[in-house]
Amino acid sequence: MDNIFRRAVSQCAIQEFDGRQRVVIENVTPELDAGKYRAKAVEGGSVNVEADIFVDGHDTVCAELCFRPEGSDAWQRVPMAPVGNDRWQGTFGVGLPGNYSFTVEAWADHFLTWKKGLSKKVEAGQDVSLDLQIGAQFLDAAVSKASKKDAASLKKFEELLRSGKKEKAVSAALGDELVALMALYPDKSHASVYEKVLGVSAEQKKAGFGAWYEFFPRSWASEPGRHGTFNDCRRLLPMIAGMGFDIVYLPPVHPIGYAKRKGRNNSLTAGPDDPGSCWAIGNRDGGHKAVHPELGTMEDFEAFVTDAESHGISVALDIAFQCSPDHPYVQEHPQWFKWRPDGTVQFAENPPKRYEDILPIDFETADWQNLWIELKSIFLFWVEKGVKIFRVDNPHTKAFPFWEWAIASIKQEHPDTVFLAEAFTRPKLMARLAKAGYSQSYSYFTWRNSKQELQEYLTELTASPLKHFMRPNFWPNTPDILHEEFHSGNRTTFIIRLVLASTLSSNYGMYGPAYELCEHVPVAEGKEEYLDSEKYEIKRWDLDRPGNIRAEITRINRIRKENPALQQTNDISFVRIDAAPGEEHGQLMGYVKRSSDGGNIILTVVNLDAHSMQNGWLRFPLELFGQPYDHRFTVEDLLTGNRYEWNGEWNYVEVNPHVVPAHIFRVTLS
Amino acid sequence: MDNIFRRAVSQCAIQEFDGRQRVVIENVTPELDAGKYRAKAVEGGSVNVEADIFVDGHDTVCAELCFRPEGSDAWQRVPMAPVGNDRWQGTFGVGLPGNYSFTVEAWADHFLTWKKGLSKKVEAGQDVSLDLQIGAQFLDAAVSKASKKDAASLKKFEELLRSGKKEKAVSAALGDELVALMALYPDKSHASVYEKVLGVSAEQKKAGFGAWYEFFPRSWASEPGRHGTFNDCRRLLPMIAGMGFDIVYLPPVHPIGYAKRKGRNNSLTAGPDDPGSCWAIGNRDGGHKAVHPELGTMEDFEAFVTDAESHGISVALDIAFQCSPDHPYVQEHPQWFKWRPDGTVQFAENPPKRYEDILPIDFETADWQNLWIELKSIFLFWVEKGVKIFRVDNPHTKAFPFWEWAIASIKQEHPDTVFLAEAFTRPKLMARLAKAGYSQSYSYFTWRNSKQELQEYLTELTASPLKHFMRPNFWPNTPDILHEEFHSGNRTTFIIRLVLASTLSSNYGMYGPAYELCEHVPVAEGKEEYLDSEKYEIKRWDLDRPGNIRAEITRINRIRKENPALQQTNDISFVRIDAAPGEEHGQLMGYVKRSSDGGNIILTVVNLDAHSMQNGWLRFPLELFGQPYDHRFTVEDLLTGNRYEWNGEWNYVEVNPHVVPAHIFRVTLS
Repeated sequence: MDNIFRRAVSQCAIQEFDGRQRVVIENVTPELDAGKYRAKAVEGGSVNVEADIFVDGHDTVCAELCFRPEGSDAWQRVPMAPVGNDRWQGTFGVGLPGNYSFTVEAWADHFLTWKKGLSKKVEAGQDVSLDLQIGAQFLDAAVSKASKKDAASLKKFEELLRSGKKEKAVSAALGDELVALMALYPDKSHASVYEKVLGVSAEQKKAGFGAWYEFFPRSWASEPGRHGTFNDCRRLLPMIAGMGFDIVYLPPVHPIGYAKRKGRNNSLTAGPDDPGSCWAIGNRDGGHKAVHPELGTMEDFEAFVTDAESHGISVALDIAFQCSPDHPYVQEHPQWFKWRPDGTVQFAENPPKRYEDILPIDFETADWQNLWIELKSIFLFWVEKGVKIFRVDNPHTKAFPFWEWAIASIKQEHPDTVFLAEAFTRPKLMARLAKAGYSQSYSYFTWRNSKQELQEYLTELTASPLKHFMRPNFWPNTPDILHEEFHSGNRTTFIIRLVLASTLSSNYGMYGPAYELCEHVPVAEGKEEYLDSEKYEIKRWDLDRPGNIRAEITRINRIRKENPALQQTNDISFVRIDAAPGEEHGQLMGYVKRSSDGGNIILTVVNLDAHSMQNGWLRFPLELFGQPYDHRFTVEDLLTGNRYEWNGEWNYVEVNPHVVPAHIFRVTLS
Repeated sequence: MDNIFRRAVSQCAIQEFDGRQRVVIENVTPELDAGKYRAKAVEGGSVNVEADIFVDGHDTVCAELCFRPEGSDAWQRVPMAPVGNDRWQGTFGVGLPGNYSFTVEAWADHFLTWKKGLSKKVEAGQDVSLDLQIGAQFLDAAVSKASKKDAASLKKFEELLRSGKKEKAVSAALGDELVALMALYPDKSHASVYEKVLGVSAEQKKAGFGAWYEFFPRSWASEPGRHGTFNDCRRLLPMIAGMGFDIVYLPPVHPIGYAKRKGRNNSLTAGPDDPGSCWAIGNRDGGHKAVHPELGTMEDFEAFVTDAESHGISVALDIAFQCSPDHPYVQEHPQWFKWRPDGTVQFAENPPKRYEDILPIDFETADWQNLWIELKSIFLFWVEKGVKIFRVDNPHTKAFPFWEWAIASIKQEHPDTVFLAEAFTRPKLMARLAKAGYSQSYSYFTWRNSKQELQEYLTELTASPLKHFMRPNFWPNTPDILHEEFHSGNRTTFIIRLVLASTLSSNYGMYGPAYELCEHVPVAEGKEEYLDSEKYEIKRWDLDRPGNIRAEITRINRIRKENPALQQTNDISFVRIDAAPGEEHGQLMGYVKRSSDGGNIILTVVNLDAHSMQNGWLRFPLELFGQPYDHRFTVEDLLTGNRYEWNGEWNYVEVNPHVVPAHIFRVTLS
């Protein structure tokens, strides 16, 4: 008998099928690929869960959000509340980094249904004597489950309902005390539980909020003509910390191949002193688990990491799964590469382009299991050395199933690891890497320049399902990308893009020395690569060079640290700025962000025009904060310290790029 | 060892996990609730499947759509093609009513990747001798799987590739013959299969396309003063068939209760001759498996059904799971009802409203399994009598799990049954009933009157996921609903709503006699109920009454039958109609539909203003049909027979409601 009913309803993971479970729970968010992947959260933060919940007929529905750390036995519960159109909402908090489970339970509450009906009948002047008798039955059922004290209280109510004293009984039945009492002992005997248990991955705080600074250690020797070392770099740390950065990211620190080594400006032949690209990994000195001898020893590296931590800075390593032809893997694991009929190993190519200094790893090798274990062990090796944050080079050219497995299993041992995907690729590949476990992703920010492009891109990131699992990291430049917007060398442009990156996204970064010094010369007109790129040579940077924007970076990073509204990305609302009534301004862009507790509100106004003063009328969305359109409030520009009293929703703004091309207003509504 | 890899990737239904399966397949549509529910199709029709499919790196991807009748062992396959942004598309056909399964398989095709690279290298003038040797290896692998004849051909190609005759070899390698040959023997050794097998329910043709005519049999006695019978109704069938209807729908035909019977105009006390509401089901003569004796015998009913079939008409029965207090169930299965402390049975109520002539069934009864079996057996009983189409009364007040089980199990035995949900309720409940198995749903059409409302509603139905599983049925009136738009009695309004219902939706219906006679008097001003509603009394209709719109109905039903574009709902595009340049017309609404083979194109233009001639400029979307903006083509108004030559996309239209308030143009593009 049971079977014919079971057949009807799809397999339920955590409940036996009972046809009396009438409440429907569906369309739960966040739910990624039917629960196959986990949504993301940050330690100490909260997870907002929504679901469509309803029942046939007119019964009153109650719903609870159930959650627990993965592996724990006991579900914790918080009530959910309806938000309209049969949609319900609830929030739970997460603690330490790790995985959390959640699901939803809901039931038709016959006591509350009865109470609602009683109230309407009383209002309509109908006789309710029989209804009071019915109500007493619900109380009776609760008594059997109640604590001694509550049972006594319930019994008194029950007696009153049965007493025939209609007025007193009705007033007690509709009162708050009884509702509160009954809410402790709901009848969940036919409660429905959502058919899936869903997952959330809570990550360490720097996964959610951080400013990244990238530099090449080899360029920081204390005297000219020498290869920089980890010990040299320790000298940089106070300055980087002083600028307010949270993470320093080092390009690969491994031995660099000799075979087919690239020369300056990516030339095919290297001179004898050319250091080569550090992405051509591996030589006789070792591979992905070694440090380049010219940078120092492994102990030097560890000392650098320790020193950075003492400044509140985490060190992020670049993990690039590719090998120079000299990499030890080529001899030790030839089966991990493709070999050609002439007995040579296949180098990387994207025909007709050839990258002869780099060998790709063959993820279709029959020995894939050993390959996976070895690649994973590279991360674990560096975790042992104190590194928790990894920037992964081109993950979209390695097999997706590998990342899914590797990140999940590394995080199982080290839940505080963070993975940034350097995946400048097509949208669906980027999203998949994020679902598969990447904490953050490089983004298209670099190529989103106009107001419309930026607004559309932020909307896509923060108002689509992407918001549940893909955290963008906004980089105005990288060693590979000098956007043509910078080619003119206008210092203001560098500040504009800095403000945008750092206030639109809680995670942002820069290829530091080049950016703060406003380096702007491309290798050729119309190209995005830097001239004399640091990728292929040792450079010397004068960080105090006139025109640098260190002060602006420092100020902005401080503002970010002091304002929780800027420590998250998804709660953003673009505001209307008009050049003339009804005519939207093309160059002034504004957006409001607020902290999760609502206590901190930041309104950023950026002038995208680096050359001219722009002004207009800005509409502050008071309705988002429950304020009337004529509310008076204060805004304080955190970049200049100026304060303004604003009177109602529409206010005049002007931004002079020759002074500072943006306002970052802290809004005080009361 | 295996286990640690398995942990990484969620459970795969139809494949063993292999880390070399690099192709990602995700976001497959149609997929309802992670595959828990089936999408809908119509027998002999087709199913359009889409998926995001991609692989890491630069390999060329191939994909196939796999499908089969549920329960069959052998998958059939059709190739899928990319449609941009890593989205792929494929279509499969379904045969007889029943359930079909589908999934997607995809792989990185190394031969095609190689060929693409070869072509680019040749173009760039690179040496490809080694590449030709590599290519020969792919051919070699195919030889081992090929037919004798193909193997011979492949070997010749292979020899050529190895021959050293570069020019000849390249030309053969890039030629069509080799590609065609290799496509027969793709290397799928690391193919990915989507992790779920998804379902489609193919239903009989009238689930997808049909015109419904509702009438009360008791009003059709051949002489006044008598209760109408099934035999009387047979007389109506030629007229109904002549008007072009496909389905006659009868309100409940069961014995009507005496207890608390409602009188005329829903009065609480019935006179001795009042027939009562046929929705108060059951008395001593029987319940849901009996016919009301005054309508005739069960044999009379069966004869009526057979007679209808001979006219091409299906009979749809109204199944209303509720009981009059006299229903035999009340005595036989008291446990299926709620009983009150005074020993009386609970009647239906939605406080403060009371429906004392109706007892609701308690779906939380401990005896729910027997209840379900009995309710399901009611459908089976009528299927035995020749009924395949059921209009279910208020399904949203019965437990959703029951419908899911009942419809699935009835369809397992009788795949050609059709279920129409009379669920005038909130959007998510309607959608859930559709997912749970209902073939069609009543809709909000009745209350969508302005151009904007209609366009938004149709967009919601046809361009959201609803299109995969919820088929709307558009009714301008029902015995319960006389929309206030009709209260003025303007005959043109009846024609406008007829045209809209019948051309916007492939499924439409009317409460026939009242609609074709333009009945328009409400029970009270501002109310939606009819005065002297047929629900509570026997009426006499003079179908030849002047002002009836039978000719218009007949013409429109004929147009629908002759034009496949109108036999589907989802392929619809609203067209721009301007009153003046750049100013959208508020009263003229136009939309194009086309048949699935593209061979039939219908452009409907409706004047929503029943009082005045309206004109404007209509932009026909030639780009949808691959035609240039200045294409010349012909439109023929199927309502009047007038033909027009149109010159390019913008054309003048005028609609005079005093003649006919719409054009239904058949568009001939060449």
